[in-house]
Amino acid sequence: MSNVYDAITAIAKRRGYYWPSYEIYGGLSGYVTYGDLGTKLKRNIENSWRSHFTRHQRVLEIDAPIINPPIVFEASGHIANFREHSTECTSCGRSYRADHLIEEKTNLENVEAMGGEAIRRLLREHGIKCPRCGSPLKEPTLFLTMFKTQIGATGDTPGYARPEAAQGMFINFKRGYQHAREKTPFALAQIGKVMRNEISPRRGMTRVREYTIMELELFFDPQDPKCPQLKDVEGEKIRLITEKMEAGEEKKPLETTIRDAVRQEHILAEWQAYYMGVSKQFVSHLGVPEEHQRFRAHLPEERAHYSAQTYDHEVHLGSFGWLEIAGHAYRTDYDLKAHQKGSGEDMTIIRKDGTRYIPHVVEPSFGLDRLFLATLETSYERRDKRNIFKLPRDLAPFNVSVFPLVTKDGLKEKATELNRILIKSGINAYYDEGGSVGRRYARSDEAGTPLAVTIDYDTLNDDAVTVRDRNTWKQVRTPISQLVENLRRYTAYEIEFGDIGVPT
Amino acid sequence: MSNVYDAITAIAKRRGYYWPSYEIYGGLSGYVTYGDLGTKLKRNIENSWRSHFTRHQRVLEIDAPIINPPIVFEASGHIANFREHSTECTSCGRSYRADHLIEEKTNLENVEAMGGEAIRRLLREHGIKCPRCGSPLKEPTLFLTMFKTQIGATGDTPGYARPEAAQGMFINFKRGYQHAREKTPFALAQIGKVMRNEISPRRGMTRVREYTIMELELFFDPQDPKCPQLKDVEGEKIRLITEKMEAGEEKKPLETTIRDAVRQEHILAEWQAYYMGVSKQFVSHLGVPEEHQRFRAHLPEERAHYSAQTYDHEVHLGSFGWLEIAGHAYRTDYDLKAHQKGSGEDMTIIRKDGTRYIPHVVEPSFGLDRLFLATLETSYERRDKRNIFKLPRDLAPFNVSVFPLVTKDGLKEKATELNRILIKSGINAYYDEGGSVGRRYARSDEAGTPLAVTIDYDTLNDDAVTVRDRNTWKQVRTPISQLVENLRRYTAYEIEFGDIGVPT
Repeated sequence: MSNVYDAITAIAKRRGYYWPSYEIYGGLSGYVTYGDLGTKLKRNIENSWRSHFTRHQRVLEIDAPIINPPIVFEASGHIANFREHSTECTSCGRSYRADHLIEEKTNLENVEAMGGEAIRRLLREHGIKCPRCGSPLKEPTLFLTMFKTQIGATGDTPGYARPEAAQGMFINFKRGYQHAREKTPFALAQIGKVMRNEISPRRGMTRVREYTIMELELFFDPQDPKCPQLKDVEGEKIRLITEKMEAGEEKKPLETTIRDAVRQEHILAEWQAYYMGVSKQFVSHLGVPEEHQRFRAHLPEERAHYSAQTYDHEVHLGSFGWLEIAGHAYRTDYDLKAHQKGSGEDMTIIRKDGTRYIPHVVEPSFGLDRLFLATLETSYERRDKRNIFKLPRDLAPFNVSVFPLVTKDGLKEKATELNRILIKSGINAYYDEGGSVGRRYARSDEAGTPLAVTIDYDTLNDDAVTVRDRNTWKQVRTPISQLVENLRRYTAYEIEFGDIGVPT
Repeated sequence: MSNVYDAITAIAKRRGYYWPSYEIYGGLSGYVTYGDLGTKLKRNIENSWRSHFTRHQRVLEIDAPIINPPIVFEASGHIANFREHSTECTSCGRSYRADHLIEEKTNLENVEAMGGEAIRRLLREHGIKCPRCGSPLKEPTLFLTMFKTQIGATGDTPGYARPEAAQGMFINFKRGYQHAREKTPFALAQIGKVMRNEISPRRGMTRVREYTIMELELFFDPQDPKCPQLKDVEGEKIRLITEKMEAGEEKKPLETTIRDAVRQEHILAEWQAYYMGVSKQFVSHLGVPEEHQRFRAHLPEERAHYSAQTYDHEVHLGSFGWLEIAGHAYRTDYDLKAHQKGSGEDMTIIRKDGTRYIPHVVEPSFGLDRLFLATLETSYERRDKRNIFKLPRDLAPFNVSVFPLVTKDGLKEKATELNRILIKSGINAYYDEGGSVGRRYARSDEAGTPLAVTIDYDTLNDDAVTVRDRNTWKQVRTPISQLVENLRRYTAYEIEFGDIGVPT
């Protein structure tokens, strides 16, 4: 963490982006609450994901439960594998993730992937003690990081909260296939809350126990692995750290394109490459510059139990350094086979030639809360002692602020009426008459609102208003009669600020 | 349940509105999964709620966690009161809600409100046995219907899944007040998943263990209880069963208006009356006719522990009879006082005259999944052996279907290109070339799509298309150049079907 994160966290609390949950009860680590600005920004990012990933009618959205019976996660391998090395202080009783303690002490990376034996050895070799009280730690044990509960009154039906949304798509594959008119390729997508019982969440917004996941499972015939849409993104520039580079010394990313990454077999499946291209476009739309994005391959020992190839999409933040915001996994037929075995349900589908197969799966998976943090932090600028969030126009919680220059002589009535008209026209307007116009601009910039409209004495004569740009603080004057249409087009990126009116 | 519900459930499974969760693992009662049509319809209802209830900038949305530490529900009274009378079979071990068993056997209503002693007596008097195996039942016990889990690795920090979203708003009241610029009245609103550990969920979609709640808490000064917006809805007609009527014999609802219900003191708080008016408008917009809506007052013994007055908003469905889809509760200062006591945090705010007070609260609370069922069932029509969902234009999963008359002679290319343009223009279009045009119309009607556009041979000459109305099966012809604008205006209820083009 850093000064940037501290600064943003302070603004976030004060203005209502987000804050630690259960403040009045002393807090509970790993839980965050979003306020009005945060809820709106988060929802706009979610809608942007949807328009990037689910607009095609072959992508079917579903909404499955959070609580699952154990058999789902037994079949998927989670109950065996979704575990972390937990160590407990012999004195104060506090628990820690052993790999994180080692990383903090040694500057080693990705200790989790080294396995239990290495973790136990490293704890010993570095003489790692309880960071809280300095006492010795117990031998680490494997802790299942899923929340468990009991369903019903008799207490004999356990349930687990899902740690990801993917299994909901796999166990409903046959229903989805039916609704996709029994053709591949097709995808199931899901946006929803997931829960992970983190042992010791300590990195603010980046490691929480409850968050929103946005996931898509693309099902295709492994004998027909071509992605017809690949051409839409193949020119997209990406920065790759391949598995070979990750294993070796070369850590400077390979600058390439989706097209070349497929040709040179850095990416195994065309559908995976396609979604990595869309991922790049989506994260760029959130405002993260190209040079602050990279795709990093997992080494075999780091990969999840189901994956043949995984690329993390990482963004670089001043606060946390490189942060994973998405995973792109080639899951093959692992999951459908696992549930076929677990349920006895036939997961094969039939080709035109009569042969049967289990589809292969490519999965892009995004953490909405980390994307939220990345969007907010990337947009943050400090200028003339003011805080400005230069949020993308279509993602900002409000589209426009509306101010009367003063609250007398009919200006207030004119401004509230304009505000009402804007809201009725579907423009997210925010009326503000408090304090000086300067203070209102400052509040508007802190809320990331792209534009501010002021009604002044001239408005009473010329029925025009002053529009001010959050990014440049420049102003133009525009007739009220054109305002709705111009604001709408500006928010949709159809025109630029200078097109809204004439400079003042 | 009934034939209507069975018919809709069958279509819902086949077409992807919803189905019972965990089908391949034999199911798990109380859990429902939504498919593509269902997820889209549900989200559109959610957005419609938002535009009815949260558009005003004094309504702040928040997003708080599902899992809460016990202290929240100890303070709120849930751990003491959120319990049901559970009885277990002495032979097969199955559990039941005692009040529901009595209601099924006796035609008594609202047995829950009669209390434990009456429930034990009624079980005995009616000789109620296990409905599954006929064996005797154990004495009922009070079962806490919240899901419990453990947070963290040490196992000494319990957590409860929230059974409603309201407490998230109360414990964050002071933050919300800060973000509302320290003025009342203001509201906090929240849409999110909640969980209730139902003892024996058996009424399909109407009693599930996980669902989405849409809730709003309006905070006002009890010394200044006027609702300035009341005038916006005061003419709204409502059908009331008042507390007095509910206690007596008269069950025919009183037909009145919001204005008169306030004047005659049937509704205690103006803000509650306001939200009941908005509630009526919202549910009417979903398609539920006035005569299938009523507001029923809770008797004191039926009311939740926090409420001074509660009206359930009920809708009448062919499947389930009168069904509660919303509750309107006047919670007074109960909750803020409870959390002030529980946390030691000062929940008072200050008036201009320097005196301090704890705000009073009015709460409209909606179950999204029941609204979904009400919308779907109300829109259902069977005509000429076809299933039609006459969903409101702005709520339907897709706005328009696009068909080529045949897939040769360039019609397919023309139709897919038109489909692409529509989607790019923000219109939710669905392309279909499978089978005859008649079958495509049937599929489109079953998906509730209001309009269908057909590209035929004439299109190649006149660049016009045929548009067909789902509700009347009438057709008009319209130039492609006007299509986007006309579809947009039709969906926004700005024009009617006849305005889209000229009759064919």
